[in-house]
Amino acid sequence: MNAIDGDGRRADGRRPDELRSLRFRRDFTTMTGGSVLAEFGSTQVLCTASVDDDVPRWMRESGRGWLTAEYSMLPGSSPERVARRVGGRTKEIQRLIGRSLRTVVDLDAVPKLRVTVDCDVLQADGGTRTASICGGYLALHDALTRLVHDGTLAESPMVGECAAVSVGLIDGVGLLDLPYFEDARADVDFNVVMNGQGELVEVQGTAEGRPFTRSQLDELLDLASLGISQIVAAQRAVLGEPPEPR
Amino acid sequence: MNAIDGDGRRADGRRPDELRSLRFRRDFTTMTGGSVLAEFGSTQVLCTASVDDDVPRWMRESGRGWLTAEYSMLPGSSPERVARRVGGRTKEIQRLIGRSLRTVVDLDAVPKLRVTVDCDVLQADGGTRTASICGGYLALHDALTRLVHDGTLAESPMVGECAAVSVGLIDGVGLLDLPYFEDARADVDFNVVMNGQGELVEVQGTAEGRPFTRSQLDELLDLASLGISQIVAAQRAVLGEPPEPR
Amino acid sequence: MNAIDGDGRRADGRRPDELRSLRFRRDFTTMTGGSVLAEFGSTQVLCTASVDDDVPRWMRESGRGWLTAEYSMLPGSSPERVARRVGGRTKEIQRLIGRSLRTVVDLDAVPKLRVTVDCDVLQADGGTRTASICGGYLALHDALTRLVHDGTLAESPMVGECAAVSVGLIDGVGLLDLPYFEDARADVDFNVVMNGQGELVEVQGTAEGRPFTRSQLDELLDLASLGISQIVAAQRAVLGEPPEPR
Amino acid sequence: MNAIDGDGRRADGRRPDELRSLRFRRDFTTMTGGSVLAEFGSTQVLCTASVDDDVPRWMRESGRGWLTAEYSMLPGSSPERVARRVGGRTKEIQRLIGRSLRTVVDLDAVPKLRVTVDCDVLQADGGTRTASICGGYLALHDALTRLVHDGTLAESPMVGECAAVSVGLIDGVGLLDLPYFEDARADVDFNVVMNGQGELVEVQGTAEGRPFTRSQLDELLDLASLGISQIVAAQRAVLGEPPEPR
Amino acid sequence: MNAIDGDGRRADGRRPDELRSLRFRRDFTTMTGGSVLAEFGSTQVLCTASVDDDVPRWMRESGRGWLTAEYSMLPGSSPERVARRVGGRTKEIQRLIGRSLRTVVDLDAVPKLRVTVDCDVLQADGGTRTASICGGYLALHDALTRLVHDGTLAESPMVGECAAVSVGLIDGVGLLDLPYFEDARADVDFNVVMNGQGELVEVQGTAEGRPFTRSQLDELLDLASLGISQIVAAQRAVLGEPPEPR
Amino acid sequence: MNAIDGDGRRADGRRPDELRSLRFRRDFTTMTGGSVLAEFGSTQVLCTASVDDDVPRWMRESGRGWLTAEYSMLPGSSPERVARRVGGRTKEIQRLIGRSLRTVVDLDAVPKLRVTVDCDVLQADGGTRTASICGGYLALHDALTRLVHDGTLAESPMVGECAAVSVGLIDGVGLLDLPYFEDARADVDFNVVMNGQGELVEVQGTAEGRPFTRSQLDELLDLASLGISQIVAAQRAVLGEPPEPR
Repeated sequence: MNAIDGDGRRADGRRPDELRSLRFRRDFTTMTGGSVLAEFGSTQVLCTASVDDDVPRWMRESGRGWLTAEYSMLPGSSPERVARRVGGRTKEIQRLIGRSLRTVVDLDAVPKLRVTVDCDVLQADGGTRTASICGGYLALHDALTRLVHDGTLAESPMVGECAAVSVGLIDGVGLLDLPYFEDARADVDFNVVMNGQGELVEVQGTAEGRPFTRSQLDELLDLASLGISQIVAAQRAVLGEPPEPR
Repeated sequence: MNAIDGDGRRADGRRPDELRSLRFRRDFTTMTGGSVLAEFGSTQVLCTASVDDDVPRWMRESGRGWLTAEYSMLPGSSPERVARRVGGRTKEIQRLIGRSLRTVVDLDAVPKLRVTVDCDVLQADGGTRTASICGGYLALHDALTRLVHDGTLAESPMVGECAAVSVGLIDGVGLLDLPYFEDARADVDFNVVMNGQGELVEVQGTAEGRPFTRSQLDELLDLASLGISQIVAAQRAVLGEPPEPR
Repeated sequence: MNAIDGDGRRADGRRPDELRSLRFRRDFTTMTGGSVLAEFGSTQVLCTASVDDDVPRWMRESGRGWLTAEYSMLPGSSPERVARRVGGRTKEIQRLIGRSLRTVVDLDAVPKLRVTVDCDVLQADGGTRTASICGGYLALHDALTRLVHDGTLAESPMVGECAAVSVGLIDGVGLLDLPYFEDARADVDFNVVMNGQGELVEVQGTAEGRPFTRSQLDELLDLASLGISQIVAAQRAVLGEPPEPR
Repeated sequence: MNAIDGDGRRADGRRPDELRSLRFRRDFTTMTGGSVLAEFGSTQVLCTASVDDDVPRWMRESGRGWLTAEYSMLPGSSPERVARRVGGRTKEIQRLIGRSLRTVVDLDAVPKLRVTVDCDVLQADGGTRTASICGGYLALHDALTRLVHDGTLAESPMVGECAAVSVGLIDGVGLLDLPYFEDARADVDFNVVMNGQGELVEVQGTAEGRPFTRSQLDELLDLASLGISQIVAAQRAVLGEPPEPR
Repeated sequence: MNAIDGDGRRADGRRPDELRSLRFRRDFTTMTGGSVLAEFGSTQVLCTASVDDDVPRWMRESGRGWLTAEYSMLPGSSPERVARRVGGRTKEIQRLIGRSLRTVVDLDAVPKLRVTVDCDVLQADGGTRTASICGGYLALHDALTRLVHDGTLAESPMVGECAAVSVGLIDGVGLLDLPYFEDARADVDFNVVMNGQGELVEVQGTAEGRPFTRSQLDELLDLASLGISQIVAAQRAVLGEPPEPR
Repeated sequence: MNAIDGDGRRADGRRPDELRSLRFRRDFTTMTGGSVLAEFGSTQVLCTASVDDDVPRWMRESGRGWLTAEYSMLPGSSPERVARRVGGRTKEIQRLIGRSLRTVVDLDAVPKLRVTVDCDVLQADGGTRTASICGGYLALHDALTRLVHDGTLAESPMVGECAAVSVGLIDGVGLLDLPYFEDARADVDFNVVMNGQGELVEVQGTAEGRPFTRSQLDELLDLASLGISQIVAAQRAVLGEPPEPR
């Protein structure tokens, strides 16, 4: 099967440069300062941001706050059951999410805060790590905004925006936002993280099969840039209204 | 504060013998044979049933199928973040869920099957283990029904129904279906599992503070029986329609 | 084989409501404040109570003492060797023992104390967890009494008595204090913990095969009550004399 | 305090070359083929030998049987509670016990057998590893003898005897069979394992403080040899009668 | 301090586009089929390739060989001692090395082979993961060539070349092959893996501080391309002579 | 094959009482205070000594410094790849190294110091633990000497010398410094540690097959003494020159 059909459509009917249907369900749960269910097509990631003031001692001495991310797949999130364990791949993903989200908070401004962003994949159909970054950014934003609203913080330490998407090459065709079906057969697989101005925060590209050229890399980054600008717009729409008081 | 106010109402407005609002959201996710989001008030547990034919060798020799349950709380399910680890309490809970669900399946009839019921708590407000049993039963039922529909099984190995609820004593007053607020101050805490005929499958009662008498135990079991009959009715309503083909 | 023969006797010659031969060997070892070998028939559990003042910091701030129990089976305690590892079942059992023993000590009265009750099964023939509670209570009592005798404590923080026994149903017949042979084929299996007044501290009942009715539950609790009153008498006989100075 | 007083006596009244009171309690428990409680003064080690035919596959291909030992201290075996974990010291000790006991069995003669000798220290007052070897040898012997008696084996694969003792130097005085009190302040600490003919199987000597000379080493080995000949005599007395049928 | 001084030199005297002194010490050890000590300045990584035919069963069924990499830092490889444990960062690095090396071997051609490339960092001064790839490629090549020489393989399954280097941005200046001193203060940090034709195999770039633009990314990839072409030349020089028979 | 041939030569041409070629490569790496590659024939152990002032709190209260050793084999150090894990054997070895090295330092004199000596086996051909002690002693000496040179310590806490060697019996012939080939078939295997005066620090001897006599033990200790005097001479030659300033 080809990457696109004669009409230039992918198996799910999308054009190569088209995102899947995108939804951010704010306050999906209500126990934490921020909670967003990020949906990209069938992919569903529940992102929550928990804040406490139990900064590790060595961190407290550094005078900085602390932000980490954790990522996990629910066992029933895939057709083949996913065992509950933290493997190398999981750690790699949560390091990526944490690094990306730390770029949008001024941790020097909140020396007593520890924020944990948890990204739990309820359903996995490709792009779970990039969906985690997109939803995690929103959960983080809501949690910190609520701390401003309740007077814990004088002003928000948020200093930027953050979104991410996957792109890939199949049969030499560049594709945006790959579901599992495409991801599994891609020759090249990229995850790209950008800020709200379209600058690059993280680029991770891997040739699964054959290596790729510089011009193919350029094509993929153009696609990612296009997709991320649309995701950022959707994030801004959510944040246009303040979170409900809790 | 008292267990009930002057009008005989609890803090959330319920009478002592009243269940919280109850909802089973069938096919909440679609990757596994069965998937049900069980909601008791604010408590939300995503129950999925995954089936494969990878029975452990020692089990295969025994000529029986295999059913286990796993239980976990998402870190953001509680106001105080829950660390991702499998402690003694978790194991105890998943052993309870597994024991209860094994009573409704004839595993001798499905010697090549391994079923795993995963209960992931999205939001924890008391009664998560009993909600897991109630939702897990439905997910299990759907998964096995679909195997009959697609011809994998000639007939369903389901042989019974199963539901569970918590009851407790506060200031000598028996209460049905305790949210966290009540659970944390209960003197006595019971989890009761019954089948569809109201017979007992499991009784676990603990005096957190002062011991309890036989007549208090009787009162609590009456309450549990009442609640479970309503839950069973709700389960039957769900199963009244076959699951959608997948 | 039936649960009882024509004369109403069990395979080991006991009547249904008869305890196995019971012995508490005080000061079986002498390194800890309390040490009791509890024997129910062939079941032997060595219970020791170790006291130190190394209360965890978070506990010290709470102004309460701390009591935990640990339970383990020696590898040679069973015909089939038991691997040395702490599984879910073990944790569940030690949580039960700890909960039960905490009901007999006023931990607020001993804010600087940490007590660990260790229950090591030398020989396992059914009822090891209930024997652990019975023997652990005595070891705990002796350890605290010795602290009073040597002047560490002004008065004993012991506030109650505690004993436990297993009961079960085989072929509809209620049986008291099941050895392994009966335990393995019981349809219903109960562990019951009571205080010295016969009030209930913990009830755990499981239908291994077929569910049970309320009247069967009542019958089993009657049996447990009968057995526990005899165990309490035996415990009182031991404690009638003070422990030897050490 | 000196190692010996003016009359040449140690703190517990023994002469330097005198063993503690020694007792082997055969069939202390009855679940395994062999079970011996080895007592050297206050030191008590319960040694059991479990036999099964579940030889690991790679061993089965080798055509040899398999014998391993495990060693553990019960938490209440010492005045300061011993945490339940397998540290480096524990592994080192069980490797020593296993090596020593493998010298007395012809494992080529029992290709289908796996023997595990478990040494659980009920009370620790020095010399627990050497007591484990002495008692483990007896438990092993009984277990294999019973296999001959019940016809599982045509003849016993036992090919030798094994005993062990600790010796040490305090203030230049050589001492046999050190209790904890002496062990803790010894300058040099030896564990010596011999066969029934007084030949050496294992020698482990460590200078805790100051190094030792060849002539001091000779003195210590003479002491060990003397003690072991007495232990071997006691072992032979036990084995003079066959174990009771089980 | 600036990234470069007035003469366009870095702190260690190099120009921005200059590699550190590079050395591959072939057969540094001789126990494995391939062994290369890769040195980039002070960075030293010992890369060994071990081959056996113990392919995991599920792999054997797939009809493919198996190649994995492991990476570890010796505790004394850094001024601040590195604890011996496998953290998330380690796993991430070994996954990168493994992915990169799998692109140069046709594993379908060697269905019975399992190759493990071990990269142990003797001295860490930046660029250890890229040095591991460069040296690991050579160790792998030698190990497989020796299998051809000794007749185990009819022909070599090597199908490509592989090299890697780090590049980074400090104060907007692009730098090739960063030592620790530069790596620690880089704003952007890239690891680039290419094949012998200069095509991209893996691109991993992270903004440690401020995000980066597309043109900065282009500049960095140009630098990496330049450096890798020189490394490939050095690798080819080594492989110009066959490995010595073993 | 015999232990020695007709001319009294071993398989590698050595006489029974001859050491392998011995080399200590000082400052093999330069990140730690001391770094020595110890080579005995093909055996290569990289020994580094890392010093910091992060003494564990309980140690700080004791007013003593702290010295531990760690030992590990690189996976590629043997023809059969060695898995990266810390087993019982590893712990036993590092306890031996640590004990031996602690005899040469006055830890009371350096209450704020923590020294870790890491012994990583690059190539294993027998005698790795004794080579670790010999090389570890030198690395430790250099690290402490450099602390005197840079003024951290007023004077060196080194109070002695330390060296070790293996000896063994094959076919009744005593052999010094066994390579793997001989070690694997030795009937008796000894590791001996001595100080610079030839006094014994540690003696560990094991009969792998048949037990050994006192006179054989004497012969082996004579051989060890001879070998260690030569090793000590080589160590003194290295330390004759001060380490280079760092």
